[in-house]
Amino acid sequence: MAIRDKFPDTLYISVQDMVRIVQRKGLSACIAGVARNIEADFLRWESFDKSARLACHSSEGVIELMPIADARQFAFKYVNGHPKNTRAGLPTVMAFGVLADVATGAPRLLSELTLTTAIRTAAMSALAAKRLARPDSRVMALIGNGAQSEFQALAFRDLVGIRELRLFDTDPAATAKLVANLAGSGLRLRACASTAEAVRGADIVTTVTADKSNATILTPEMMAPGMHVNAVGGDCPGKTELHRGVLERASVFVEFEPQTRVEGEIQQLPADFPVTEFWRVLAGTHPGRRNREEVTVFDSVGFALEDYAALRFVRDAARELGIGEVMELVPRAEDPKNLFSVIVAQEEELAV
Amino acid sequence: MAIRDKFPDTLYISVQDMVRIVQRKGLSACIAGVARNIEADFLRWESFDKSARLACHSSEGVIELMPIADARQFAFKYVNGHPKNTRAGLPTVMAFGVLADVATGAPRLLSELTLTTAIRTAAMSALAAKRLARPDSRVMALIGNGAQSEFQALAFRDLVGIRELRLFDTDPAATAKLVANLAGSGLRLRACASTAEAVRGADIVTTVTADKSNATILTPEMMAPGMHVNAVGGDCPGKTELHRGVLERASVFVEFEPQTRVEGEIQQLPADFPVTEFWRVLAGTHPGRRNREEVTVFDSVGFALEDYAALRFVRDAARELGIGEVMELVPRAEDPKNLFSVIVAQEEELAV
Repeated sequence: MAIRDKFPDTLYISVQDMVRIVQRKGLSACIAGVARNIEADFLRWESFDKSARLACHSSEGVIELMPIADARQFAFKYVNGHPKNTRAGLPTVMAFGVLADVATGAPRLLSELTLTTAIRTAAMSALAAKRLARPDSRVMALIGNGAQSEFQALAFRDLVGIRELRLFDTDPAATAKLVANLAGSGLRLRACASTAEAVRGADIVTTVTADKSNATILTPEMMAPGMHVNAVGGDCPGKTELHRGVLERASVFVEFEPQTRVEGEIQQLPADFPVTEFWRVLAGTHPGRRNREEVTVFDSVGFALEDYAALRFVRDAARELGIGEVMELVPRAEDPKNLFSVIVAQEEELAV
Repeated sequence: MAIRDKFPDTLYISVQDMVRIVQRKGLSACIAGVARNIEADFLRWESFDKSARLACHSSEGVIELMPIADARQFAFKYVNGHPKNTRAGLPTVMAFGVLADVATGAPRLLSELTLTTAIRTAAMSALAAKRLARPDSRVMALIGNGAQSEFQALAFRDLVGIRELRLFDTDPAATAKLVANLAGSGLRLRACASTAEAVRGADIVTTVTADKSNATILTPEMMAPGMHVNAVGGDCPGKTELHRGVLERASVFVEFEPQTRVEGEIQQLPADFPVTEFWRVLAGTHPGRRNREEVTVFDSVGFALEDYAALRFVRDAARELGIGEVMELVPRAEDPKNLFSVIVAQEEELAV
């Protein structure tokens, strides 16, 4: 039917499809590709209609919708955060998302984003560290060895030059899992008995813990001059990882300030505590790290623009590799004013 | 695998699946079923975490996300409104939505909502008219004979007792299409040459036009005592259908006041213009229509709770009829902290 040809398709990328994309392109190439897209999109910061995500909180966790748009494309992600899920065998974080045409509202891509979120979060972290950490950083402490930790490790290996990981998790089985998964990665892996031990001697400290509490995983006495902190796990009201003293003595960089004031580590600090949106560093209007002694913190909460960049990557990779399938998410009528006919027309089709 | 058994499924309902549901149950039964769910959910008004929808406006239209949740379920709808789409053969309104478990964040249902939105909008309109129109209403003017008009007509026939439709559309082909579609409906159908002609003698006036402008389709001199106006098409900033004089002389009922102040017909009026949330009429704390002379207006914009009710209907009908298929929207790992293993495990699966 003619209408089916001119009607824009909705491409569906399942978890299996995304696994195929990662396997065909390689995980390192996917992380690097998403990082390139994030950088390109952050350099167009002013082109986007930005808002803080819409969060629905319950006693067990949070469900969020993260929309963003430029003049051509609208994107949103659905994502949850339920720290106790793992006890029931479920992931803490599950996500999917959509790209749509602004000109018509037609959804063009529906994709899994659980795997993709792990990739984009790691890509964002590494992109920030590349500008904010000392260039000779080689040792990273990785606090929290759960679902996202391997992705962080590989992103920092590939994009930042990290060669050694110092690992700590309150669950030793999580650390053992990470060590097993990254055995062939070329990274030196050292399991540590505490956060303090892991942080000692590290150039970069990545915190990616799941517990929903005002934790103080990093305290001021653990910090050494010149460290860069990649604070990933504190990302909603009541969920922080850093002692406020760590923030007060550091230069703090954020994604989208209005969202981070509510969700980030800086929720602990007065609303006028100075922070810098990271896109300014990419754009060259802020120098980023000023010297070798400065402590820098990337107070990351995850911003919709990173998912927009990741969805672009998934779409382009799927097209290139011929992966995914077309789904009939919206009806196609010969006469769009005749929605009623869809019921009748398909009845005839079904009757054949 | 054990994990696949305990992992909650995501059911996918495509357009074809929804057509099958409508054909198996009958359109009238679907409209009535959704109306029952809306009534039940509106009676639990205080149980819901409500917010105005998030709208992304462009020169051509709007894309909206409509989330809502109670203690057990989170729902959202994606919906656009692009009046010029029909020129390119695309629907003005396209929609899909999700039901998820609040306790875990797991998405449980992804469904088409274009057909379903037409059904739920008609169900909501008829439910309101049943309480707000004169009980002996038999004649309805239907202004705007596009994609949603047949659904409105049948809902008012079934739930309100309408026997005659007086039709007008600026596009005569749209009216002809409606007349053809409803030839066997038992409704008397009269095509009229103007809105004024269609409205004359009507008990109820339904406006469901698509144009994005501050239109004045209904003006005060067209109104007769005792009329009920079901104003459906004015639903975003800059898109209204009624002359303000119609509103000023009527008792105005709305879905969710904070959203309607921005999007509804009452956007033309001061913020303190008195309105009544319709759930109060259902709950018995507001009488609704007070006498046979009063003019009532249901200033409908479409509220997330109606989609929540509709998604419940779709899920229950799909289960009852065994329609739909399971989609792998989120990954299933034996160890949920080992997301990284999904890439490897599925590689092995794929290699088999």
